[in-house]
Amino acid sequence: MRSMPLVVLASAVALTACGDRPARTSAAADQTASAAAAPVLPSWNEGPTRQSIVDFVERVTDPASPDYVTPAERVAVFDNDGTLWSEQPMYFQLLFALDRVRAIADDHPEWRSTEPFRAILEDDREGLAAIGMHEIMEIVMATHAGMTIDEFDAIVSDWLATATHPRFGVPYTELVYQPMLELLTYLRDNEFKTFIVSGGGMDMIRSFAERVYGIPPEQVVGSAGELEFSLVEGVPTLTKTPGINFVDDKAGKPVGIRRFIGRRPILASGNSDGDLQMLQYTAPGDRTAFGLMVHHDDGDREWAYDRDSHVGRLDVALTEAPERGWTVISMKNDWSKIFPSPDLP
Amino acid sequence: MRSMPLVVLASAVALTACGDRPARTSAAADQTASAAAAPVLPSWNEGPTRQSIVDFVERVTDPASPDYVTPAERVAVFDNDGTLWSEQPMYFQLLFALDRVRAIADDHPEWRSTEPFRAILEDDREGLAAIGMHEIMEIVMATHAGMTIDEFDAIVSDWLATATHPRFGVPYTELVYQPMLELLTYLRDNEFKTFIVSGGGMDMIRSFAERVYGIPPEQVVGSAGELEFSLVEGVPTLTKTPGINFVDDKAGKPVGIRRFIGRRPILASGNSDGDLQMLQYTAPGDRTAFGLMVHHDDGDREWAYDRDSHVGRLDVALTEAPERGWTVISMKNDWSKIFPSPDLP
Repeated sequence: MRSMPLVVLASAVALTACGDRPARTSAAADQTASAAAAPVLPSWNEGPTRQSIVDFVERVTDPASPDYVTPAERVAVFDNDGTLWSEQPMYFQLLFALDRVRAIADDHPEWRSTEPFRAILEDDREGLAAIGMHEIMEIVMATHAGMTIDEFDAIVSDWLATATHPRFGVPYTELVYQPMLELLTYLRDNEFKTFIVSGGGMDMIRSFAERVYGIPPEQVVGSAGELEFSLVEGVPTLTKTPGINFVDDKAGKPVGIRRFIGRRPILASGNSDGDLQMLQYTAPGDRTAFGLMVHHDDGDREWAYDRDSHVGRLDVALTEAPERGWTVISMKNDWSKIFPSPDLP
Repeated sequence: MRSMPLVVLASAVALTACGDRPARTSAAADQTASAAAAPVLPSWNEGPTRQSIVDFVERVTDPASPDYVTPAERVAVFDNDGTLWSEQPMYFQLLFALDRVRAIADDHPEWRSTEPFRAILEDDREGLAAIGMHEIMEIVMATHAGMTIDEFDAIVSDWLATATHPRFGVPYTELVYQPMLELLTYLRDNEFKTFIVSGGGMDMIRSFAERVYGIPPEQVVGSAGELEFSLVEGVPTLTKTPGINFVDDKAGKPVGIRRFIGRRPILASGNSDGDLQMLQYTAPGDRTAFGLMVHHDDGDREWAYDRDSHVGRLDVALTEAPERGWTVISMKNDWSKIFPSPDLP
């Protein structure tokens, strides 16, 4: 396992039982004062995007403001793929699943003649290009079920520690966005509770979210497969069984927020039409709330894609953003740094 | 609305963004020192039950102990009905549902000739006695679905503020157990994060859990109906639709814990066979963990029931408790006070 140059994350890592900032005792207030003296959001360029974030946080945290929100209600939700880390050339969870297909292919000789597995194992570009949602579900079932949760967690942790990204050559957890890490920290410093609300699988995200984002497992909402509890020779065991329990995407995101969090957020951040309903629910335009979209427009340092992209399509939400008053981040113009590592853009 | 004499709850009410104790800054450490000087678990009689709780908490919080557990992993889960508040003569949520049937009967003339609604409306004891799980589901669907979440939350809040218990004549939220409130506070004072994991509906519990137990909505796991998100004339709306999404009971409890919390608890407390699997999962006997069962053996001050009860049957779990090393609370012997109000036992 590589030693990760993510020392900048130290301040984001949860030190409290819940991964959020402690209430302000007098000592904590002193810490806040010194934190306020340090630059806030240093990887964000000065401009209307950064300013809109700071303005909102100051409005909802100032007890004298008409928009003041109590700390308990300061819930912020973030999409993961394309919002907190990259999602190209495809969702990292899908890259994990493809690696798993290759790793366990010897146990499945039938895959040599069954699509989409044949195409994956032979790296057949034409066959791979034909993979649609139905095939993706088959791949996910074959690689994410039929094992205990402990087995799955170990497989994911091993993959995250060893696999590297095809373009950048670093572990996937290094491809998180430095400005978003700073935003998470800034919000927690202002007594927000930060959650992930992702279309990706919650088990996978939970395996690294606390270490990388400072977000504990209980604050990660995502898609989920079925689970079964049983005693196996007297040992309590949770097994991941085939079947999708919940798809936390599109209209599923507000449902996931209500079900898992139970409060309406006051800040939501996403990057694609999969986040549209979450932003509509959080920041429809007529309540004190903040909608924030990441627009991938930096092909040099990261990727540039929006309305026509297969992965992370941003079309309807990009049109709706100005109507609802959401802030749209230009990665190219608003972020002075993309990834935490000094060796990366 | 009665003014509630729950001043004793003040210290239990969440002051931080996440409803848990802040990390120990030097100021917080001072507070802890003075809290330690105050009596811990004052409504618990001295004896092996109380002592086993204190011993466990001291073992897992002492960094020098081989059983030390980091604050992030100090997850404690509590059943609600019969564990944190009473559940007789029937689950309070069912009493709510029966009241709702009566309240909206005018909109449902067909109920006058349809069981189980006819029996409820006519208070027909024979018909009521025939109500089984299938009828309960019908009643729940008729009273918990077909409205927005905001409408449901308002109905529940109104009911909790006005309805009174048939035996004690007080609002249901006064029938919480004072010793368990003290236990929740004691655990949070020791940097535990406290969750509810209930077979009851999570929406209903969330409507009072923060105020009454100091447990915020995002730390309440429970059974849930289906939800749908839509824009109603442009307004983002979550509607409770017929259909059960998740039954958080029996083998569903460990599943709910994994899905909603994502960590294996180190303390689980219940009172019935519905909690058996949650206790098996948390405290199988071969890991550092604590299982705690409430045994209702106090017919004078509360109720006495166990192996043969229709509500809250405690049979298999009572047999298994000594085998797995779980602590069994005798309400009669271990609790010097049952309810917070000075006017109640």
